[in-house]
Amino acid sequence: MKRFILSSIVAIGFACASSSATEFNDTQYQQIDTLRKNAQHSELSWQLLTSLTTEVGPRLPGTKNDQLAVEWAQAQFHQLGYDKVWIEPATFPNWRRYHESAHIMTPSHQPLHITALGNSISTPKDGLSGEIVLFETLDELIAAPTNSLEGKIAFINYRMNRDIDGNGYGPAVQARNKGAVEAAKKGARGYLMRSVSTSLHRFAHTGGSHYDSEVTKIPTAAVANPDADQLARLISLGHQVSIKMNIQTEDLGEGTSYNVIGEITGTEHPEQYVLIGGHLDSWDLGTGALDDGAGVALTMAAGKLIKDIKRPKRSVRVVLFAAEELGLWGSKAYFSAHKAHLKNIVAAAESDFGADVVYAFESNVHANSLPLVREIAKQLAPLGIEYIGRNQAHGGPDLIPFKQAGSAPIFALHQNGLDYFDYHHTADDTLDKVDPNKLKQNTAAYAVFAFMAADAASTIKAK
Amino acid sequence: MKRFILSSIVAIGFACASSSATEFNDTQYQQIDTLRKNAQHSELSWQLLTSLTTEVGPRLPGTKNDQLAVEWAQAQFHQLGYDKVWIEPATFPNWRRYHESAHIMTPSHQPLHITALGNSISTPKDGLSGEIVLFETLDELIAAPTNSLEGKIAFINYRMNRDIDGNGYGPAVQARNKGAVEAAKKGARGYLMRSVSTSLHRFAHTGGSHYDSEVTKIPTAAVANPDADQLARLISLGHQVSIKMNIQTEDLGEGTSYNVIGEITGTEHPEQYVLIGGHLDSWDLGTGALDDGAGVALTMAAGKLIKDIKRPKRSVRVVLFAAEELGLWGSKAYFSAHKAHLKNIVAAAESDFGADVVYAFESNVHANSLPLVREIAKQLAPLGIEYIGRNQAHGGPDLIPFKQAGSAPIFALHQNGLDYFDYHHTADDTLDKVDPNKLKQNTAAYAVFAFMAADAASTIKAK
Repeated sequence: MKRFILSSIVAIGFACASSSATEFNDTQYQQIDTLRKNAQHSELSWQLLTSLTTEVGPRLPGTKNDQLAVEWAQAQFHQLGYDKVWIEPATFPNWRRYHESAHIMTPSHQPLHITALGNSISTPKDGLSGEIVLFETLDELIAAPTNSLEGKIAFINYRMNRDIDGNGYGPAVQARNKGAVEAAKKGARGYLMRSVSTSLHRFAHTGGSHYDSEVTKIPTAAVANPDADQLARLISLGHQVSIKMNIQTEDLGEGTSYNVIGEITGTEHPEQYVLIGGHLDSWDLGTGALDDGAGVALTMAAGKLIKDIKRPKRSVRVVLFAAEELGLWGSKAYFSAHKAHLKNIVAAAESDFGADVVYAFESNVHANSLPLVREIAKQLAPLGIEYIGRNQAHGGPDLIPFKQAGSAPIFALHQNGLDYFDYHHTADDTLDKVDPNKLKQNTAAYAVFAFMAADAASTIKAK
Repeated sequence: MKRFILSSIVAIGFACASSSATEFNDTQYQQIDTLRKNAQHSELSWQLLTSLTTEVGPRLPGTKNDQLAVEWAQAQFHQLGYDKVWIEPATFPNWRRYHESAHIMTPSHQPLHITALGNSISTPKDGLSGEIVLFETLDELIAAPTNSLEGKIAFINYRMNRDIDGNGYGPAVQARNKGAVEAAKKGARGYLMRSVSTSLHRFAHTGGSHYDSEVTKIPTAAVANPDADQLARLISLGHQVSIKMNIQTEDLGEGTSYNVIGEITGTEHPEQYVLIGGHLDSWDLGTGALDDGAGVALTMAAGKLIKDIKRPKRSVRVVLFAAEELGLWGSKAYFSAHKAHLKNIVAAAESDFGADVVYAFESNVHANSLPLVREIAKQLAPLGIEYIGRNQAHGGPDLIPFKQAGSAPIFALHQNGLDYFDYHHTADDTLDKVDPNKLKQNTAAYAVFAFMAADAASTIKAK
């Protein structure tokens, strides 16, 4: 259904796209063709992803591995022949996970697969036990009577929807953002939630969570979906279900990491740049292959492939953001550090939604730039990418500050996200979940997009 | 390919099947029809499986949950109206898993998903560390020079094949049975193996392992397949890889559990019986839904569904074997306790290969009984079950002693096992992996088979 709608939009989009044939000359079109083909056959993004996820592995901000990743990225940018390579600091709340375990105590002893949510405090050393009280939604928990959860563990069993655009994430993640606070308000000792995940396997999904300075902090965790089903089934069979969970974490205060930036410097307007990238950090459970090693690897490779064709008129800047998972801290730092010159960004796109194929391309730019956008869309079409003409792209999470400030032309290369939340933020986010051929298609899409935005006759403007 | 071969066998099988029309009269054929339809529509096996895996959960022999399962099974048999319900003791080596964890130490810190193999000794309290040495096969390890693994951890990375019949298991499981002994012979401090599993996810596969009284015992574990890939990749990228693993287990000496037996007593030859069943125990990681809650539930349901039609001429005995996972201890105990009367078994089939559809039916009986076997096959055909005429059925693992002694007519209701080893012996073997409709098909197959073997005019004979 969605595919049909997209096709209609494409047709409308192209109907008025013929006016911008002056953006590129024949030589440039040949270069775009060569770039697309080179990227489709290049092993570079796969090699980078393999190296990052294998030799560095998990990259929780503030850890030794996070440092290794920063060193790795600088070394790779240099080796790929980027013209400029530098780092910029970003601070963030430094948090560590040391231990997490749980089991059902009654009606029988059964291990539960849980994971602490990011920012969770510890339980007592010997764990925390209590009867669980099930709510289907966050709203049900909010509607519970005051003090009704005294001494208990609140459990929200909300099921995330599977969707190509990941649209099920927003509604589901509310229980992660606010659940612990709302449970504590009702007197709960602990908070447990069904994973914000479409996985059918016993992997719990971590992710950021928040406390309120006015409300008692309680330990907060997610439970794997099959385990959530087990708890719900036990309750529906009439059992009073008590569990014990043991979470040991640490708040280490403020930490510092680094955005790592590599630039292919433009030949005519070097101060203007296309910003592409991903985030270098990952959660600690998996090796951050889909989230977001893929985005890192494919944008680094795209820049190198562009440089191998030629340096475009404007610069291509690959920004690997720090500490995204803990709250977009690298993005905020970049935004703040470059505040005076954000108008130099002529196009921005972040890859942070796994490594499945890019199926659609969308802009969020000034109307005067739409003819050029359509020219780019035409060159993405051979990669199986449709054009969405609504001009309301959100971009990736690290582009949120830029979009909110209206300070950059934003682009989205929409990836198929049907399977993304099977792995996202779980231990199962590992290299083997990435299809090398799909990664190549992504690389080609970013390379063509960035090259064209950087080498066009006109400069793309923000709305 | 295999399907084509099976079809040919069916054709040959049926070509000479017309001589046994006297085994059943019209009333019996109507009863068979009704039984098949009832089973295909009955929720009973699903309800039993749900209850066992949810309310009891994991069932490691010797644990409190194992006791609960024995109580559960007796209560269910009584409630289902079985004519006789009893238990018979079985002893086994009582082993417990308390803790297991591991991580890569160099070149970077990365958690590994491991599980101790059954019977493994503990590491020191603070764990055991060492460089890993990779072997592709057990034979490669056996061929390693003496003392070449001094202070190291041997790692066999053998990949199991996926196969409808589970034929990949036999070759792969050798590394589980013998790896720790062979590694210790070369001086290794620990043994790690790729999981005997086709899973693409980070679940390590446990299972029985063995020591040799002449060889130093070393801790022994399996690592999840994506983690095995990670270790192999690190080595292939030129890294020296050290890991630390911590396994805490306990040998509790001899334990006792119970075979639980329910009987629908025959009206003409009550001492003769059809033996169907599964094993009641499971590994401790999952909830033993596929291995072997399904076999337990569907054979219990089949007996009840038969009784609801009528008590057949011969008895139907549902045997839920104890401590199969630790070495067929319940089966050995049953065999020994009933040694003098094994000739009373007129047909035996164990369901212990998950809950995917039964696609073929095969016997291992005296040639004189083949016409009756073909009559049964005809009544299984409406369930989509083909007849394999080679008459060499192995039966389930608990039937091995019976088959070896040549003391019973053995039957196999072959299940599609393509996905079985994605879950087998892992934490991911949970109820949600079972398709209720496929479980009904299995139930119908066992009900029709057991009823016909028990109610035929002639008695099936062993080879």
